[in-house]
Amino acid sequence: MSNYTQIIGIASGILTSSSLVPQLVKIIKEKKAEGISLGMFVVLLIGLGGWVWYGVEKKDIPIIATNCFSFVTNVLILIFSLKYKKKEANK
Amino acid sequence: MSNYTQIIGIASGILTSSSLVPQLVKIIKEKKAEGISLGMFVVLLIGLGGWVWYGVEKKDIPIIATNCFSFVTNVLILIFSLKYKKKEANK
Repeated sequence: MSNYTQIIGIASGILTSSSLVPQLVKIIKEKKAEGISLGMFVVLLIGLGGWVWYGVEKKDIPIIATNCFSFVTNVLILIFSLKYKKKEANK
Repeated sequence: MSNYTQIIGIASGILTSSSLVPQLVKIIKEKKAEGISLGMFVVLLIGLGGWVWYGVEKKDIPIIATNCFSFVTNVLILIFSLKYKKKEANK
């Protein structure tokens, strides 16, 4: 694999990963999680875990790095969503 | 690459891709796009385009298929979001 391909993978990984961050910031800032489907997040987490596994099998660093980062960001989104959903339910 | 690795990639692709669909359905059903950051979607689309390119360079079918599907789904989310945002602005 050339360095050039590696750079495309890393750049794409940074873009798709960073697109998750505003969602997390928005939930923490507004302290509410409406519009977020929890079922969707569970499916997404299983899928991201699978991609990390796939990356390990293929020894593909951009795939592993991107999906690990996305996995952690989505776990944080899930935790904050559940926290604010619970608070709303208690009102 | 073994068939087993290919299966992990395809299964992960189906999971991460399908997690986008409820978001699209929700926007179309509720005819509103609140909670969706448009700037985030543009960054995501550029990133997904990059992943397709990366998949082509590495001749990696699961990467190409998953990111093409995600790209199309996100373009649809973007189109419907813009449509409903415009309507809300005209109210």
